[in-house]
Amino acid sequence: MAAEGMLFPNFYTANPLCSPSRAALLTGRLPIRNGFYTTNGHARNAYTPQEVVGGIPDTELLLPELLKGAGYVSKIVGKWHLGHRPRFHPLKHGFDEWFGSPNCHFGPYDNRARPNIPVYRDWEMVGRFYEEFPINHKTGEANLTQIYLQEALDFIKRQQAAQHPFFLYWAIDATHAPVYASKPFLGTSQRGRYGDAVREIDDSVGKILNLLQDLRIVENTFVFFTSDNGAALISAPKEGNNGPFLCGKQTTFEGGMREPAIAWWPGHIPAGQVSHQLGSIMDLFTTSLSLAGLEPPSDRVIDGLDLLPAMLQGQLMERPIFYYRGNTLMAVTLGQYKAHFWTWTNSWEEFRQGIDFCPGQNVSGVTTHTQEEHTKLPLIFHLGRDPGERYPLSFASTEYLNVLDRITPVVQQHQEALVPGQPQLNVCNQAVMNWAPPGCEKLGKCLTPPESVPEKCSWPH
Amino acid sequence: MAAEGMLFPNFYTANPLCSPSRAALLTGRLPIRNGFYTTNGHARNAYTPQEVVGGIPDTELLLPELLKGAGYVSKIVGKWHLGHRPRFHPLKHGFDEWFGSPNCHFGPYDNRARPNIPVYRDWEMVGRFYEEFPINHKTGEANLTQIYLQEALDFIKRQQAAQHPFFLYWAIDATHAPVYASKPFLGTSQRGRYGDAVREIDDSVGKILNLLQDLRIVENTFVFFTSDNGAALISAPKEGNNGPFLCGKQTTFEGGMREPAIAWWPGHIPAGQVSHQLGSIMDLFTTSLSLAGLEPPSDRVIDGLDLLPAMLQGQLMERPIFYYRGNTLMAVTLGQYKAHFWTWTNSWEEFRQGIDFCPGQNVSGVTTHTQEEHTKLPLIFHLGRDPGERYPLSFASTEYLNVLDRITPVVQQHQEALVPGQPQLNVCNQAVMNWAPPGCEKLGKCLTPPESVPEKCSWPH
Repeated sequence: MAAEGMLFPNFYTANPLCSPSRAALLTGRLPIRNGFYTTNGHARNAYTPQEVVGGIPDTELLLPELLKGAGYVSKIVGKWHLGHRPRFHPLKHGFDEWFGSPNCHFGPYDNRARPNIPVYRDWEMVGRFYEEFPINHKTGEANLTQIYLQEALDFIKRQQAAQHPFFLYWAIDATHAPVYASKPFLGTSQRGRYGDAVREIDDSVGKILNLLQDLRIVENTFVFFTSDNGAALISAPKEGNNGPFLCGKQTTFEGGMREPAIAWWPGHIPAGQVSHQLGSIMDLFTTSLSLAGLEPPSDRVIDGLDLLPAMLQGQLMERPIFYYRGNTLMAVTLGQYKAHFWTWTNSWEEFRQGIDFCPGQNVSGVTTHTQEEHTKLPLIFHLGRDPGERYPLSFASTEYLNVLDRITPVVQQHQEALVPGQPQLNVCNQAVMNWAPPGCEKLGKCLTPPESVPEKCSWPH
Repeated sequence: MAAEGMLFPNFYTANPLCSPSRAALLTGRLPIRNGFYTTNGHARNAYTPQEVVGGIPDTELLLPELLKGAGYVSKIVGKWHLGHRPRFHPLKHGFDEWFGSPNCHFGPYDNRARPNIPVYRDWEMVGRFYEEFPINHKTGEANLTQIYLQEALDFIKRQQAAQHPFFLYWAIDATHAPVYASKPFLGTSQRGRYGDAVREIDDSVGKILNLLQDLRIVENTFVFFTSDNGAALISAPKEGNNGPFLCGKQTTFEGGMREPAIAWWPGHIPAGQVSHQLGSIMDLFTTSLSLAGLEPPSDRVIDGLDLLPAMLQGQLMERPIFYYRGNTLMAVTLGQYKAHFWTWTNSWEEFRQGIDFCPGQNVSGVTTHTQEEHTKLPLIFHLGRDPGERYPLSFASTEYLNVLDRITPVVQQHQEALVPGQPQLNVCNQAVMNWAPPGCEKLGKCLTPPESVPEKCSWPH
């Protein structure tokens, strides 16, 4: 894909974990703006488990809603993760079709104490993970990627036949714990089950690109591959590796937020190119609108850039990348320099229990287990020379002072103008879980929710 | 090059530092056999600085000597590092031409206390580094890679014109500290001076491959790219990065000995392939002989394999990779498993002085600063799932016991059959330095050697 397209080695997601990043992708806005964050503690990560009450606010404009203005038909295949209560349903937020799940494919594998996650086709559930959609914990076998692939291929064929412009959000999750692959891929990689899952995704992406070629719509179809967070090293080595980058998912080090990224559009994007443009998952929002001939909304701040100048003319645009945990700005990258205003991996308490976001890595004063403030004198790294964030610049160096002079006004301007959205990930309630999703009656799979008891969500890191 | 050839992601050098690896490349034999090691202390690395008395023994058969049997003309461009005294001269060991230096391009930048390293053309010196061949310490500017490139191109053209089969050993050293690049490359990479040097080498390799194409001899010319040790993290971030691998040069972790490796031979080696064959730099000896229709010597142990079945038929051959420091077998890899019998990075004493071979990395009980013995119960890693050597297998697991059962006899057999060569790196003497190399008279660059005082070399790590 990269050989036929453009590789973005300096591409970032919007948050070091799943649902805030996905909300940012679909709104073009930082989680701090679209509400996908918590204020339940300082610098706490939050996401969308079953008990979360919040989700994507109706006031947010999602990419598929906007693309309707240019006649696009949109489908999400796979993980939604922007809320599981009825008002947050993806078909209420611009998608025309859905096959997949509102949350991750976590257990609990016992649908009495906590329901297993439902799988939807459009408005109604068609089963639950570990029930109608099995994932074998012991062998790692599951056919989900193959099912998601068929959904994608079928959607593309139908839209092409109907001559509809289309937006497919193919949100596969095989590399999320518990990692899975289908039988033909299990045991085929050098890297265990995680490698098998990556190979199956790779093969499936190939099949999607091949279909576009067979249908002769490649020159009219823009494809982008990326991820919503770095590998979760807490479950390594089974579930991944962040190569040269520091730490993993949950952290605002490069291993948490720097992502593989490839743009593919034969005939438009030149083949085999590498762009050093700093890119963000939020840019996919703005770039997609631009491709459809639409303007981004003008009544709100949009963080995404239009990447077409970078892709088509090789331009390099200066722009910051912000790294948040909750409502705390942890770090910023500008050009090749990254400044950390706060450093934290996880608490000593968690770390002593064996929860390690940076296994085998230890950069003194950087991979800290207490929240260390550096807002006056940030730790600054040159990510080109030092992609692993191991050598902070000397505070006394001219280079440090010059960089600080450039970064300070960018951060001040960002923080002064920032109007945080209503935090969606503060309140939890067992009663809002997926007990009785629409369609459960037909399948005889409705469960009785417990009494409604709203509580402050507990976010450990 | 990889897109047109075959990538070997599991390829190893023979020693975690320079001259022993080069001796192994040219003899097809482990340094413990060909003499490029020391017994001056337990598990001590040694190489070929100016004061070393030893070098490549006359009893060793080097690749260019053997290739003469098939009419090959051989040239070494760049660093020799197999001894600098007259008896060790590369033209006495099979090479027909030489342009380059007997040692690294270290200083001392003052040719009175210690001479600067000479640069030879064939039998005689033509100048010295930092004198006739400048390397600007401040800017990193040097034209050496360009000079080495011209030497390579010129040699290839002459051999092609004369219809001679040829062997070119292009031993560039721009990525060795002090890292250098020529003006057109300085400042052009994202990765500082080290990246600039890599880009210049990349560009030069491209020019060599292009020449082979222009001369229409690609189908008749086998090209292999690799390195003699991992990046020296002691001088990082200026001088490199080992990506996902643990530690760097000087260590027997993957960062010290696993190397980039590409085989290129259009029309024979299929394009764009990846081979998971465990490969060694010593295989280049055996493979090259095989390509020339020659048998490896039968009167001695050869550690190199013929890789042609892996390259041409995609075969996978089981074979061990041995990791030595001095005469101590530190580790072995078999299949995807690596067993460490000794762990050591460097001493506490060095470490406390700021010498760190694993900056930012710390795997408890693995990156040790005392020499830890594990010969009875080695630490075992699965390098596929865990290329960074962060998660030793549990001693109690079936996997561990099965692997140990497979590895133990391989190691026993190796150690029982091993006849160590005469160690060449034990004795040092200031009088053997490059005071008055042949040709110095013509240039007026002869220095007076001090009194001969042989001493035991001191090898700190």
